[in-house]
Formats: sequence, structure tokens, C-alpha cells
Amino acid sequence: MKKLFKKRSQKSGLLPGTLVHIGRAGTGDVKITVIDYNNDDFQEKQLSSIEQCRDLKERASVTWLNIDGLDDMGTIEQAGRFFNIHPLTLEDIVNTDQRPKIETFENYIFVVLKMLTFNDADKTIDGEQVSLILGGNFVLSFQERPGDVFDFIRERIRQAKGRIRKMEADYLVYSLIDAIVDNYFVILEKLGEIIESLEDEVVSDPTEKTVRKIHSIKRELIILRKSIWPLREVVNSLRKSETAQITKNTEIYFSDVYDHTIQIIDTLESFRDMASGMMDLYLSGVSNRMNSVMKVLTIIATIFIPLGFIAGVYGMNFEHMPELHSRWMYPAGFWIIIIAIIAAMLFMFKRKNWL
Amino acid sequence: MKKLFKKRSQKSGLLPGTLVHIGRAGTGDVKITVIDYNNDDFQEKQLSSIEQCRDLKERASVTWLNIDGLDDMGTIEQAGRFFNIHPLTLEDIVNTDQRPKIETFENYIFVVLKMLTFNDADKTIDGEQVSLILGGNFVLSFQERPGDVFDFIRERIRQAKGRIRKMEADYLVYSLIDAIVDNYFVILEKLGEIIESLEDEVVSDPTEKTVRKIHSIKRELIILRKSIWPLREVVNSLRKSETAQITKNTEIYFSDVYDHTIQIIDTLESFRDMASGMMDLYLSGVSNRMNSVMKVLTIIATIFIPLGFIAGVYGMNFEHMPELHSRWMYPAGFWIIIIAIIAAMLFMFKRKNWL
Amino acid sequence: MKKLFKKRSQKSGLLPGTLVHIGRAGTGDVKITVIDYNNDDFQEKQLSSIEQCRDLKERASVTWLNIDGLDDMGTIEQAGRFFNIHPLTLEDIVNTDQRPKIETFENYIFVVLKMLTFNDADKTIDGEQVSLILGGNFVLSFQERPGDVFDFIRERIRQAKGRIRKMEADYLVYSLIDAIVDNYFVILEKLGEIIESLEDEVVSDPTEKTVRKIHSIKRELIILRKSIWPLREVVNSLRKSETAQITKNTEIYFSDVYDHTIQIIDTLESFRDMASGMMDLYLSGVSNRMNSVMKVLTIIATIFIPLGFIAGVYGMNFEHMPELHSRWMYPAGFWIIIIAIIAAMLFMFKRKNWL
Amino acid sequence: MKKLFKKRSQKSGLLPGTLVHIGRAGTGDVKITVIDYNNDDFQEKQLSSIEQCRDLKERASVTWLNIDGLDDMGTIEQAGRFFNIHPLTLEDIVNTDQRPKIETFENYIFVVLKMLTFNDADKTIDGEQVSLILGGNFVLSFQERPGDVFDFIRERIRQAKGRIRKMEADYLVYSLIDAIVDNYFVILEKLGEIIESLEDEVVSDPTEKTVRKIHSIKRELIILRKSIWPLREVVNSLRKSETAQITKNTEIYFSDVYDHTIQIIDTLESFRDMASGMMDLYLSGVSNRMNSVMKVLTIIATIFIPLGFIAGVYGMNFEHMPELHSRWMYPAGFWIIIIAIIAAMLFMFKRKNWL
Amino acid sequence: MKKLFKKRSQKSGLLPGTLVHIGRAGTGDVKITVIDYNNDDFQEKQLSSIEQCRDLKERASVTWLNIDGLDDMGTIEQAGRFFNIHPLTLEDIVNTDQRPKIETFENYIFVVLKMLTFNDADKTIDGEQVSLILGGNFVLSFQERPGDVFDFIRERIRQAKGRIRKMEADYLVYSLIDAIVDNYFVILEKLGEIIESLEDEVVSDPTEKTVRKIHSIKRELIILRKSIWPLREVVNSLRKSETAQITKNTEIYFSDVYDHTIQIIDTLESFRDMASGMMDLYLSGVSNRMNSVMKVLTIIATIFIPLGFIAGVYGMNFEHMPELHSRWMYPAGFWIIIIAIIAAMLFMFKRKNWL
Repeated sequence: MKKLFKKRSQKSGLLPGTLVHIGRAGTGDVKITVIDYNNDDFQEKQLSSIEQCRDLKERASVTWLNIDGLDDMGTIEQAGRFFNIHPLTLEDIVNTDQRPKIETFENYIFVVLKMLTFNDADKTIDGEQVSLILGGNFVLSFQERPGDVFDFIRERIRQAKGRIRKMEADYLVYSLIDAIVDNYFVILEKLGEIIESLEDEVVSDPTEKTVRKIHSIKRELIILRKSIWPLREVVNSLRKSETAQITKNTEIYFSDVYDHTIQIIDTLESFRDMASGMMDLYLSGVSNRMNSVMKVLTIIATIFIPLGFIAGVYGMNFEHMPELHSRWMYPAGFWIIIIAIIAAMLFMFKRKNWL
Repeated sequence: MKKLFKKRSQKSGLLPGTLVHIGRAGTGDVKITVIDYNNDDFQEKQLSSIEQCRDLKERASVTWLNIDGLDDMGTIEQAGRFFNIHPLTLEDIVNTDQRPKIETFENYIFVVLKMLTFNDADKTIDGEQVSLILGGNFVLSFQERPGDVFDFIRERIRQAKGRIRKMEADYLVYSLIDAIVDNYFVILEKLGEIIESLEDEVVSDPTEKTVRKIHSIKRELIILRKSIWPLREVVNSLRKSETAQITKNTEIYFSDVYDHTIQIIDTLESFRDMASGMMDLYLSGVSNRMNSVMKVLTIIATIFIPLGFIAGVYGMNFEHMPELHSRWMYPAGFWIIIIAIIAAMLFMFKRKNWL
Repeated sequence: MKKLFKKRSQKSGLLPGTLVHIGRAGTGDVKITVIDYNNDDFQEKQLSSIEQCRDLKERASVTWLNIDGLDDMGTIEQAGRFFNIHPLTLEDIVNTDQRPKIETFENYIFVVLKMLTFNDADKTIDGEQVSLILGGNFVLSFQERPGDVFDFIRERIRQAKGRIRKMEADYLVYSLIDAIVDNYFVILEKLGEIIESLEDEVVSDPTEKTVRKIHSIKRELIILRKSIWPLREVVNSLRKSETAQITKNTEIYFSDVYDHTIQIIDTLESFRDMASGMMDLYLSGVSNRMNSVMKVLTIIATIFIPLGFIAGVYGMNFEHMPELHSRWMYPAGFWIIIIAIIAAMLFMFKRKNWL
Repeated sequence: MKKLFKKRSQKSGLLPGTLVHIGRAGTGDVKITVIDYNNDDFQEKQLSSIEQCRDLKERASVTWLNIDGLDDMGTIEQAGRFFNIHPLTLEDIVNTDQRPKIETFENYIFVVLKMLTFNDADKTIDGEQVSLILGGNFVLSFQERPGDVFDFIRERIRQAKGRIRKMEADYLVYSLIDAIVDNYFVILEKLGEIIESLEDEVVSDPTEKTVRKIHSIKRELIILRKSIWPLREVVNSLRKSETAQITKNTEIYFSDVYDHTIQIIDTLESFRDMASGMMDLYLSGVSNRMNSVMKVLTIIATIFIPLGFIAGVYGMNFEHMPELHSRWMYPAGFWIIIIAIIAAMLFMFKRKNWL
Repeated sequence: MKKLFKKRSQKSGLLPGTLVHIGRAGTGDVKITVIDYNNDDFQEKQLSSIEQCRDLKERASVTWLNIDGLDDMGTIEQAGRFFNIHPLTLEDIVNTDQRPKIETFENYIFVVLKMLTFNDADKTIDGEQVSLILGGNFVLSFQERPGDVFDFIRERIRQAKGRIRKMEADYLVYSLIDAIVDNYFVILEKLGEIIESLEDEVVSDPTEKTVRKIHSIKRELIILRKSIWPLREVVNSLRKSETAQITKNTEIYFSDVYDHTIQIIDTLESFRDMASGMMDLYLSGVSNRMNSVMKVLTIIATIFIPLGFIAGVYGMNFEHMPELHSRWMYPAGFWIIIIAIIAAMLFMFKRKNWL
């Protein structure tokens, strides 16, 4: 069963600003990639140290520095010093148990998001924390592990597709957030498919496994909710932000992401309602099946226990039982009584609508 | 089972502003109709290209351009260029998985609504996205499929009935929204009828089918809710809008639509409460029936199992059982005991209120 | 079963402002009564046409025009023209499916309320829409049917009791609303009595009928809620109204009605909680009864089925069963075993607390 | 069963301001007590008429007039005229079905509260309405019955303990409200004890009585909630009041009462959650017990019904049943089969974890 | 079972400002520790009387006075006089049944918090009230018992680690609150582990004990909620505080604590949802098990009761039963019928999916 949250206790009592990576241990490797572009120019390289992008930072072009892997505190601290990041921000970056949030500092905007992936094998959702820092003309992105949903953005920058090369750093941040949010639709789609197939299962062939699947989807929705609800506020803040880092031009794009966020939340709530509804449906199904089991037992027992008694009576060894000596008592009398009782019982059950 | 939402994942990773029709594939045909009117004049024609209404656009009269079918991206883009529509708006028009919303741009107001139809055959609700654009003196409406609830508006314009020919473009938008919202009452009425007949069914003849019908009506209400709740905000924004496109004169009309929206939401919530209540009623009915089944079993078994034992005793083959040799033991003693036991049992059940 | 709402669909597609009476068809008759008063003077008459009160309208006295019956559109339209009422208001008056609301126009305030009556026979609540229009020195009231809760107000005006003759038209509107709201307490009292007698029934003698009664009271509360909740906003608006029609003097009176409204809503919510609680109590009662039924069955079956087996054993016809030939086996051995088993079983049930 | 609310219907239709005592009829007696004090001076007397305190009213000292018993309308009206109280306030005082509220008039502040007492005998809560009027230098308090929680306040005034003699009339009102609110903690403590003992009962020895007790505590909490929730607003208004009657000095004292109110509401909500949790626990207990009853029945029946059949087979009277003639068939063969079947069954039940 | 709240009733009726320690009685001992520091200097000592820190109070350095034990009213009152604390504040300090709150006085800010500890033995949460007073350059902290989560802060001050020695008194208050809030993560982790192990238990091996554990974790969450929810407001007030005591520099630190608080609340709500989900899962498990018990009973009874009847028939002693005399009737006819019936029954159960 997946953990509900990450161990954080190890951190309590440390100095504020002390960097301790909380979350799944990575490989320990850090991969630093920089993409620098403006309308005319473009370069992309792997760095072994943050220092190597000093010249890019000075230039007016947009500089996107992406860091995969949060295990090497040295690199994170170096990035902090280099870009003048507040120690508490650095702490939030490496502590991957944050809820999505936005914080505005004097010289940058700090955004924490959850990038989700759906694990097809065990039908669970996996989350990775992505921290974005938007400075004047640079964007820093921190990820827990290599692999992300940003490849098509890189491709667009490389090939100068769309307007991205013509826009400022805030448009890049929009693109990154939009990519993450768009990905939520993929997750929701998968969950929707699971819910629909579960609904079919509840109706057609409900077993105890079904109820566990419903429970586990409800659990998944609870966790998902924790990641997605705060997003609304984050994107809304970005959209209404009046800082220097976010230009008027991108406002409409953030509004678009905001709409998507609302839609995702709506769908999530519908899913929750549906999961609850399924549980009710399942339970009423269990009751119904119990009812029909009981009916079978009752019908059989109600008919045959009295008959058994009658047979028992004529199995008694009393010396003086006149019925036993009659010639037609058994073939006629006895069986007629038996059949009459059965018929009467069946008629009664019929009237009670049990058959 | 109806899909909970439309596939959207295919779109993730595309350029913002890339037009991809998300939703049920149409026939591929696009039908463009234009109605142009003012108090004195009126013309209506089919166009094969957006360009053909250039002269109408220039005139001071109200121009209503209706486009049925969203499969041909060319036409949508042409409309976008011609009326100076933002690419994100165009994207929202063809992406028919929007929630109802309103967006105000410099030169137009963009409204997304859901036009619902009730499918009498399988008792489900079908939705179609209607996008409205209100510019200075023109209105664009985009529909997924031909066929809508606007015919009586067209008739009024043609015959100059009511005040529509005397009013501006914003009154046309009001008329269109009002037609869609009025249609919701029809849907609610149908749902109300289903709920009432289900209530009768739960009380008089509940089967397992009943509970599935309740579940499916709850599901329908969840989906309906997603379409209708955001409407409140949309219509409220229109009513309080302080843009040039909406004149003071129509404010009272939008207030009227707002009242209807609130009423629809109220009714929807009552329906939800009622559907929940029905589920409870159904479950209590199942429990009650189980109880009465168990009572029958218990009464019969409790009476006849002990009697069977007594008969069994006198069927034993012990050599020395003095009772067996008595002359009156069977006809008198045995049956008196049996009848006494039955009577005592029935008395007890009576006192327990089981009979 | 009572209808959840009124048919409204017949109206969709009509011109806004088209008057169609939606609701229970009346007798078709319209009764127009006018009461005109000031501190010194008073007159009351039946009119056959709205026009007849032209002279009263001109005078500075308060003119209360009451119209019973909404079937004659001619009269409504005449009133509209005569008092300069907006067509949408007239539409709301005849469409009796409105939720309580207040609308402020330039020359009048329009209030819609529900006047409820409790039908003692089938324990349901009946609603009638009352529309009030407060102009400068006149009040119009529209009712669906003759018969209302205003008789004591008429009496007070006639006999100049209380302050009503000394006050303006807004005090009359307050009096009318207060009469309607006060009447809600009567309704709540009846519902409270039903709920209390149902609680007794659930505890002392619950049957399947009980659960249906609980369900129907819950249903009644859902419908009542739809009528009463919006009232809060209506009365609050009146109280805080800054229009010319409502004078400072009556503010405190509207505050008083507001208090009553809050109290009614509180009580309604308590009733809802109680109805839910009763359902839980009922269901736990059903489970408990099932339990006790099962216990009886289990005790009897558990004792007598094994005994029956033992009797069966000694009823077998094996040639070599030494026990059968013993002299004391039956009278002593057999019965001692039987009684020992019964005693052991009873002891076990006692310990399990089943007896 | 306690009434949910007081009969109020008798009042509908009366003139606003008509005084009718709604609530439990008292003895008809009215007891008027006046305490007048300042830092140096103190007097306390019983009055037979309000008029007798004319001289005290004139003086600058704080005058506290307490009236026990609301049956004598004459006294109430006299107090109204004497202290210049609005008729609607007088109406609210005698109508003891008010919810807690605060109303600010030009010359006084009017506060309605519920003074609760816990009836140890039948474990119910009894409420009495206390109305307070705070004028410039006087405080009026109206109670339904003699006996209150104010005795220690009187004692403090008499003995000049604490700061009360040095403070203004608003501090007296604070003291009275604080006494009432402090008393709620006593009520909550009693309820808490009942809830805790019920929790023990649900776990250790749940009977049908338990569920009724849970139901009745839930009911008590619903009624309590109606009295306490509005208090929050009342005390908050007092604390933030900017009227002449409430001085800056007492603000901190009202803040303190406000804190207590919030705490009481918190506790109340926790109690509600707990009562719901207990109901769930009880129901799961019922299901579990049913399960164990069913298991006993199933084990016994499943073992002995097949054995009974086997015994029955060898009790048959067929002429040709070779088994019957074998020497060792009964003592060895038969009993070995029986014991083997029992062992197999027990093993199966063991594996199913039923034993 | 743990008490839901502390006895407070003993206090009702006392003078406001009367100090009575409400809560668990301590040892009666009071331990006063003072730590005084600035960037250059540091001293720490035990005091036997508050007076002894007079010289420290005068100095510009930060003075942190910690008092363990609230039983000695003398010390509390002395502290009150010495630091000029309002009597109501002192009352709140010794009354340890407060909800977390913040109060701003002219010369200090008063904060009440709950310091929680998890009792591993009986899996319950223990709370201790911590009161903080932040004056100009001093901080007072009051605890119920010795032992707290502040040791690492003392260590940092002693060793001048981090920025604490360079900051003002408000940073010390931040550090103390942060230590308490950080500790909540430890509590939540433990609860999370319990919930996860309970989830496993519900799925794999649910017993009646499981449901009591679920109930007791729900109870723990209800109590926890009461301590944590108000915290949100407290920390938010601190963060937005515009008093002289809190400097601009620490604002960002309080924002960080605020984030943690929100996260804790989120997690708590998820836990509540999960606990509810588990209860549902458990109940559906009980129903399923009941179903399978009933199936076993029904299968056995339905097969063997009719067979028993047939055996009974041929055990009857009628003189004329031709079947009894046939040679092959028993070995062939009888057993073939029996086996045929069994096979038919099994087939039927198979088709009903009961096997």
C-alpha cells in the first residue's frame, strides 16, 4: 500500500534553512541542463556546475536551468547563492512533501507543483515535486528524478515553433505549468476509465475484490485532491499577480490554465461522488444477494421441516396407531397430504412474491 | 454506460492555440448561416465561406452568424481572423469539453454554454457545447451539430415579433442564453417525472433494477450539476458586466435569466436530496423484507424442529419404552402434547408481534 | 404523491413578457378588491375593472389593491399598464413557479413569497404564490386563489387598530409579509408534532409504514426548504433597502421579520437533522429485531437439531445395537443425556448473553 | 419526550407589539428586585411596582432591576413605559421562543440569551430565556422563573468584591452574560460524561436501550446547538459594539466571553461527531453479533443436519439393507463415519476462521 | 478512555481574573529558567523567584523566561505584576483548557498553543498547553510540566548556531512555535502509520477489535482537530501582525510556519476521510462474511433437509409400503435418487454462483 505522506520527522529540530532532502531517495546523481534562447538565438547544454552558466545569466535572453535530482545539497546551495534565492525557498525545494504553493519574493516568484504519473501496473498515481523559480529573465526548475512532461516544450524552443521564442521568461513558466496541468487530464481519464469499469463490475459481477478496488480508488482520489485543490489558488495568484516578473501579455494564458484547473477540480469532485455512489450500490447489492440466499433457505426449510415431522410421526413405534394398518393410507393418504402441503406453501410464497 | 467526460489527453503537448476538435466526431460538414437585421430590415442566408458576410459586418445592423459543426478547422480559423478572435478562444470553441464560462476580451465577450437534450429512449441527458461571441454589433454562435433550441428566435426575427428587432446584439445573446436555460426546465421536468415514478416503484415494488435506476439518476444528476453550477457565475457576470457590449437596457433581462438559473440549481439540489432519500428508503425496504423472510423461517423451524425431535424419540427402538405400549398414548397423549407445543409457540410469537 | 414542481416547459420559447399562467388552473374568475385608507379616512370596495381605482391612486392615501386569481391575463395586463409595471414583473406574477425573491425597479419594489397552508387530511403542505408590489403610496397583491392569511390586517385597517392607519404603504407591505411568515410557525408546529409522534412510533412500534412516513416528512422538508431559504435574503434586502419606498420607520419592523425568518430556518434545519436521526434509529431497530429473530431460531435449532440426531441414532435398525436392549437405557440414560445437552446449551447461550 | 419548540401559533395575527407570554406558564407571580450601587454605596430591595425605583433611576449609580416571571403583562408594560423600551422589544421579552440575539436601539442595547440547566433525573437540558437591557446607567434583566446563576454576582456587589462596584453598567451586563456562558461549561461537562459512559456501554454491553440513549443525546445536542450557535454572533457584536453604552474598558472582557463561546461551539461540534461515531460503532456491533449468531447456527446445522440424514437412512425399513446385519457396522463403521464427518467439518470451519 | 475535556465547572462563579489551575494536577513544583542573549553575550540560570531577573529585563538583550508547572499561583501572579500582564491573560495561562488563540495587548502579544506528544503505549495523543508572551525584548513561556520540544533551540542559543543570536525576541517566538508545529508532523506520521496498518488489518483480518481501533483513531482525530484548526488563524494573525513586537524580518518565517499549518490541516482532513472509508470497508466486509456464512448454511440445509425427509418416509411403519420389499430399491433406487437430488442442487448453486 502506498504511503500517505513522506517521512518528515527526521527534519524536526533542524535549523530553519537547513537543507535535508525529504522524499524518495534518488540515485544521488544531479543533472543540470541549461537552455538559453531569444527570438534569434538558441543554445542548450549540460552543465557540471551551476557556475558555468554565468555568461548566460548576464545576457538579456531567457535562461532556463533545469536540475534533475535533489540529493546533492551542494548543487542546490550553489544555485541558491548564484541566483540569490532565500534559504527557506531552498529548504522547500528539497523537502518534497510540500503542498502546491506560490510565494513572491522581491527578486523572484517561487512555485511548487506536483507532476503526476499514472502507474498502469498497479493503478496508482505517482507524484513528483516540481519547483519553479521565475526571476527577471531566468527560470529555474527542480525535479526529483529525470524524466518529465516538458519534452515538447524543449522541442518547440529548439525548433522555434509557436510564440515561445518571442516571449519572455514568464511565458516559459506558463508553458511548464500548462504542461503539468494538461497532464492531469491524462490522469483523470485513466481514473475515469477505472471508475467506469468498476461501475460495470459492481452491476454485473460484484465480489469482495470489487469493494477493495472502490476503496482504493477513493483513497487515490483523496491523495489526488491534496495535490490538486491548492493548485487553484496558485494559478489564480499567478493570473492576478502584479509583480514585475509577470507581464500583462501572459495573463490570458494563466487564465486559461486557471480554467483547466477548475475543470479538473470539478471532475475530481464528480469522481468522488461517483465512488461514493458505487459503494452504496455495492452494499445494496450485497443486501439483495443475502436476501435471495435467505429466501432459498426459507423456502426449502419451510416446506421440508414440517414434512419431515409428518414422516417422523409415522415412523413412531406406538403399538396403537390405527393409520399404519390402513391399505391405502401410505400410497394415497400420506402422499396426498404431503403434496397438498407443498402446494399450499408454494402458493403462499408466490403470493409473497418470493418465487 | 455514458462517458463521464471527453478524451482530452490527445491534446496535451500541443501548442496553445492549436485547434483540435475534442468531442464526438461530427459529419465533417459545416453549415454557416447568417441573419442580419435591424428595426426596418432583415436578411437571412447560407454562406459557403465566412468572407461572404464582409458587407454585413460593416453595416450598423445586428449580424448573427451561426456555425453548425466544428470539424472543419479552416472555417473556424477563418472566422477567428475575420472577427479578430483570440487563438485561445478558438481553441476553447473546438474543445467541447469546456465548463460553462465567460471571458471578456477587449473587443468581444466570449460565453460557453451547454445545450442539453433529453434522450427519451435510454433516459439519459445529452449535451452539446454552444459558444457565443458578442462583439460590437455581431453575434457568433458555434454549435457541435445542426439542430438547436433557437428556432423560435429566428422566427421572431423574421416576423419582427416582440422587441428583438428593435434591440442591440446583446439582446440577441440574452435571447439565445434564455432559450438554452429555459430548455433546462424541460430536462428537469423529465428528471422530476423519473424521480417520482421511481419513488412509487421503491414503495410499491422494489427490485434490484430499482436500485440501479436510482444509481443512474444520481449519476445523471452529478453530470448535470457540472454543466449547470458554473452557469450561475456566467449569467451573474453578464448581468453585472460593465463592458461596452452589454447595454443598460438588457441588464434586467439577464437578471431574469439569473433568477431562472438559481431556480434550476435549487431544483437540482432538491433532486439530489430526494435521490439520496430514495436510496435510504430502498435499503430500509430490503432490510424489512429480509426481516420478514427470517421470521417465516424462524416460526416454522422453531415449531417443527422440536416436534420432529419428539416424533424421533418415539421412533426409537429401545426395548423398554413403556409409553409405546399404552393404548391411548398415540391418539391422545402424543397429539395433545404436539398441539400444546404449537399453541404455546404461536402464543409466544404473537406476543413478540411476529405474526 | 405531490408534484415536486410545476410544469413550466409549455412556456419555453415564448416571447419574454408573454403572460401565461403557470400553476394550478384556477376557476378563471378574478376578484379585485381595493382598500384605501389614511389616518382619518377609510374605504373598501370590490372592483370589476382596475380602471375604477383611478381616483384612489391619485390621492395621497395608501391604496391596497388585492387581486385573487391569475387566470385572466387581461386584468393582469391592465394592472401592469395602469401602475406602470415592467412586463417581466407581470410574467413573474403569473408564473407561480417562482422562488421567493425581491426586485427593485425605479418606481416600485417587487416581492414574491410563498403562502403555505397545511393540509391536515394528507399531512402535506400546500403553497400559493403571493406577489407584492410596493409603489409610492400603493400596494398591489396578487394571489392564486381566494382565501389568505390577511383577514386580521383588513380588520385592523377597518377598525383603525394599532398603528397601521397612521403609517405609510411600506408598513402595509411589512404587515402582509409578517402575516405570511407568522403563518410558517403554524406550519412548523404541525410538522414538529408529526415528527414527535413519529419519534414515538419509531421507538414503540416501528413498521414499514413508519419508514415511509419518515421519508415523506423528509420530502416535505426538502420542498419547504426551497420556499423558505430564499426568504432570508428577501427580508434582509427589505430591511437594508435604501429606496424611497421604504422609510426609516419600518426598518425595525423588517428586522423583526428577519429574526423570525432566521428562527424558522434554524427550526427547519433542526427538523432535517431529527428526521435523519429517526431514519438511523429505525434502521438500527430493524437490525436489532433481525438479531433477536435470529437468536430465537439459533437457540431452538442449535438445541433440537443435535437432539434430533441422537433420537435418529436410536431409531436405526442395526441388528447389533447393545444400548437398545438395556433395561434403564431409555428412561434413565437417554433422557439424562438429552437434559444434560439442553442444560449445557442454555448455559452457553446464557454466557453469550443471548437469553 | 421534550417539546422541540414552544407553541407560537396562538400569537399569529395579533398586532405587532401585543404582549402575549409564549412559553411555559409560570405561577403568575412577578418578583421585582432592584440593586443599586456605585463604588461607595449599595442598596438592594424588593419592589412591588416599577415606579418605586424612580429615584434610583435618576441617580448616577448603576441600577440593576431584575424581574422574575413574565406572566403579568402589566408589569412588563409598565417597565416598558418607564424605561422607554420599544414595544417590539417588550414583545420579544415575553415571547420566550426567541433565538439568542442582540439589537441596538437608540437608548439601549437589547440582548436575548438562553440560561440552561441540566436536569439530572431524566438527563435532559432545560432552557429559560433571559432578556437583558443595557441603558445608560441601568440594566434590566427578565427571567421566566425565579432561580438563576447570578447569585455570586449579587454577592460580589454586596461585598464589593472584585472590580464590579468600580465599573459601569456594561460590566454588569458582561458579568451576567459571563455567568450564563460559564454555566454552559457545566452542561457540556455533564453531556461529556454521558457521552463517555455511552461509549463504554456501546463497547461493553450494547442493547437496544443504548441506541435510544445515543439518539436522545443527539437530539439534545441539536437543541443545544440552536441555543448556542447564535450566541457567537451576539457576543461578537457586543465586543465590537461602538455604542455609547459599552465602554472601551469592557471590550477585553467581552473578548474573553467570545473565546469561551467559540470553545463551547467547538466542543459541541466534537460531541456531535462523537455521537455519530458511536452510532456507527453500535451498528457495526449489531452486525458483528448477528454474524456470530449466524455462525453458531451454521456450524451446528451444517454438522448435524447431514448426520441426521445418515441416521435417518439406517432407520429406514427396507427389507434388503445389508449394512444393518453386519456385526460391527454400528459400533465401529457408523460411529467412525459420524466422527470423521464432524472432524472434517470442524477442520473446514477452523480454516474459514469461524471458530 | 481519555477525557474529552478538562473539568472547568469548578471555576464557574469565580471572579474574572481569579487564578485557578484547571487541568491535570502537577507536582506543585515550579521551575523558572531564564536565558538571556544577544549576538555577543549569553547567560542561562535557574531562578527561585521572578524578581531575580530584574537586571536582565532592563538590558537590551533578548530575555527568555520559561516557567514549568502552573500549580503555584504566587509565581504566576508575580510574573504578571513584574511584566505587567493583564489578569485575564494570567487566567488563560493557568486555565489549560484553552483553544489555541492569539491576543494582542498594548505591551505584548499573547499566544496559546498545544504541545502534543504521542503516547506509544496506548496509541493516544497527549496535549500540554504552552502559553507564550512576546513583549518588547522578552519572551515568557509557560508550560504545564517539565519536558518540551525546545531543547534544540536552547542548544542553538548556547552555541550561537544559526541566526537566532542575531535576531530579536520575535524570532525566538517563531522558533518556539515552529518547534511545536514541526512536532505535529511527528504525531501525524505516527497516526498515518496506525491508519495504514489498520487498513491492512481491515482487508486481511478484520475483527471486532479492528472496528474499535478505527473508532478510537477517529476519536483521536476529532480531538486533534480541535487543537490544530484554530492554529491556522493564530499563525496567520502573527504573519500579518502589524504590531511593534513583530518585525518585518520574521514575517517570512511565520509564513513558512503558516504553510506547515495548512499542510497539517490538509493531512488531518485526509486522515478523517480515510478513517471514514475504512469504516465503510469494514462494514461491507462484515456483510460479505455474513453472506458467505449464510451461503454455507443454505447449501447444506437445502440439500440435506429434503434428503432427511426422504429417509424419514422410508422409515415409516405403514404396513403397505410396496417400495420396502423390492430387492434393489435400497441399494440402487434410493441412492440414485439421493445422488440425483444432490447433483441437481449443486448444479443450481453453481449456476447461482454460490460455489
